[in-house]
Amino acid sequence: MASILVVGSIALDSVKTPKGSSQEALGGSAVYFSLSAGFFAGVSVVGVIGEDFPQTHRKFLESRQIDLTGLEVVRGGKTFRWVGEFGKDLNQAHTLETHLNVIEHFQPKLQPHHKETKVLFLANIDPDLQWEVLSQMSGPEIVACDTMNFWIHSKPAALKELLAHVHLFFVNEEEARLLTKEENIFKAGRVLSEWGPEVVVIKKGEHGALLLAEGRYYAFPAFPVENVVDPTGAGDTFAGGFLGYLASDGNFKDAQSWKRAAVHGSVMASFTVEDFSTRRLEKLSSSLIENRYQKFLELLRVEDPAQILQITV
Amino acid sequence: MASILVVGSIALDSVKTPKGSSQEALGGSAVYFSLSAGFFAGVSVVGVIGEDFPQTHRKFLESRQIDLTGLEVVRGGKTFRWVGEFGKDLNQAHTLETHLNVIEHFQPKLQPHHKETKVLFLANIDPDLQWEVLSQMSGPEIVACDTMNFWIHSKPAALKELLAHVHLFFVNEEEARLLTKEENIFKAGRVLSEWGPEVVVIKKGEHGALLLAEGRYYAFPAFPVENVVDPTGAGDTFAGGFLGYLASDGNFKDAQSWKRAAVHGSVMASFTVEDFSTRRLEKLSSSLIENRYQKFLELLRVEDPAQILQITV
Repeated sequence: MASILVVGSIALDSVKTPKGSSQEALGGSAVYFSLSAGFFAGVSVVGVIGEDFPQTHRKFLESRQIDLTGLEVVRGGKTFRWVGEFGKDLNQAHTLETHLNVIEHFQPKLQPHHKETKVLFLANIDPDLQWEVLSQMSGPEIVACDTMNFWIHSKPAALKELLAHVHLFFVNEEEARLLTKEENIFKAGRVLSEWGPEVVVIKKGEHGALLLAEGRYYAFPAFPVENVVDPTGAGDTFAGGFLGYLASDGNFKDAQSWKRAAVHGSVMASFTVEDFSTRRLEKLSSSLIENRYQKFLELLRVEDPAQILQITV
Repeated sequence: MASILVVGSIALDSVKTPKGSSQEALGGSAVYFSLSAGFFAGVSVVGVIGEDFPQTHRKFLESRQIDLTGLEVVRGGKTFRWVGEFGKDLNQAHTLETHLNVIEHFQPKLQPHHKETKVLFLANIDPDLQWEVLSQMSGPEIVACDTMNFWIHSKPAALKELLAHVHLFFVNEEEARLLTKEENIFKAGRVLSEWGPEVVVIKKGEHGALLLAEGRYYAFPAFPVENVVDPTGAGDTFAGGFLGYLASDGNFKDAQSWKRAAVHGSVMASFTVEDFSTRRLEKLSSSLIENRYQKFLELLRVEDPAQILQITV
């Protein structure tokens, strides 16, 4: 049985960046998340597609051992589509078109094996749907969620209610400020943690991430990527690496474990942005991931002579 | 003899931020730098003030053992003044007024003991003056410099020429992009290093810093500060902690030493922003610095079980 259940979008994305463009390519929060988490643990996806969803994409996901028994196919329906653009500032996506299609009337229904999953990731969808999925679960060890500006504006109360029942909240910098009305990002994080989540992870794109756990802040730079091609999906890939690592580590209550999870999240995100759509994740291997993870640890490692002395004495 | 020489501005700053304001308070790049570096090593200042410079400021700097024999006082002259404002986005200073006053006709002249200094910091002034100071030196072991948008626009050729003779270049993110016309910050850093500096340090304010040395990038988050009062001088304080630590460490050629220097720079900058002007630096002690430095190392430390195993086996 898979150890992680994700509910979120499966999309066909058309994206333009200063490095080129992609048309109707595989995308969506559940896709990026599960491809990333799948390197560390078994993943089940709950989501919806239309009959037009290319068979090659489905086969590719299956080839990665991702459990698609929870993938609903709507007869005659069209898959969710997103059209977006990134300007020179690759930190900010500009949505040009959103076609909800089959997602508009999506009612997630969990199968018995989904309900027993240890780790649940509620990717960015309507907070009411996130709540519906959570309420069907038997009692997961870790519940994590993400959101976006749209839900912060349209359903702030539902989102806040959800956060009271979530262990881990992934949120980006602007969203954290918007949701809490706090300009200082560290204060914003504290407000969010007061609303419920034990761990708040604030994603800052090329500037890395902040992790607030047990009242303490841990800060991480991003892994240096010199050729960012397409940032689409970086946040969900980060969450996938984070939760995938946690699921494989099995330790959900230790700051060092969360820190390693954050580094794994950053490593996975650093790959995703190197090509359009899921192309880079498709070519990835566990040894490439381990290699970059070790490079990242080396980058972070500051040897303190006094501490080294203590060890050698 | 002091081990660090700094040439830069001594100012009276009037600053408004969302947290309040300060009027004609002690400021300037050479002041922030030397107060910060002074916790680690002896510092000599070369700069200029007017007769209106308050005696209390001078006495305070002297009380910190900062060598002011290179501080020129212009008879009847007025000290450089800067009036600025920070909005909600504390990363960006808005200059309201600049009164160059005595700085306008400043011609730095080094005394014999200045010329023998091991570490030279050319803080943000006219690149022609930076060059003039450098050319008077006997052969320092480390030459570092900073600059600002104004000089990038008005004297790009002089600045580029200077960089060919500099070991360490401190530059902020926007300036690095502006100077190199490269949008990707990692590529911008590489271009800068090709122009001469062995080490390029890109300052990113609340997002930390990047260090490029021997072709490799090291990234650092900023120390989390939950109550930023006034970011004025953070960059020069960072450079002070960085070079002060290097001067005390004595190792100018080792990546681990540069990394520790960057962490010390971040620690010092994290203090400066907690109050207006130099107030926080005035109340600081070596033990407070050491304490925050250890906290920062703890924040950065990611324990890898595989590595720990290697050590214990």
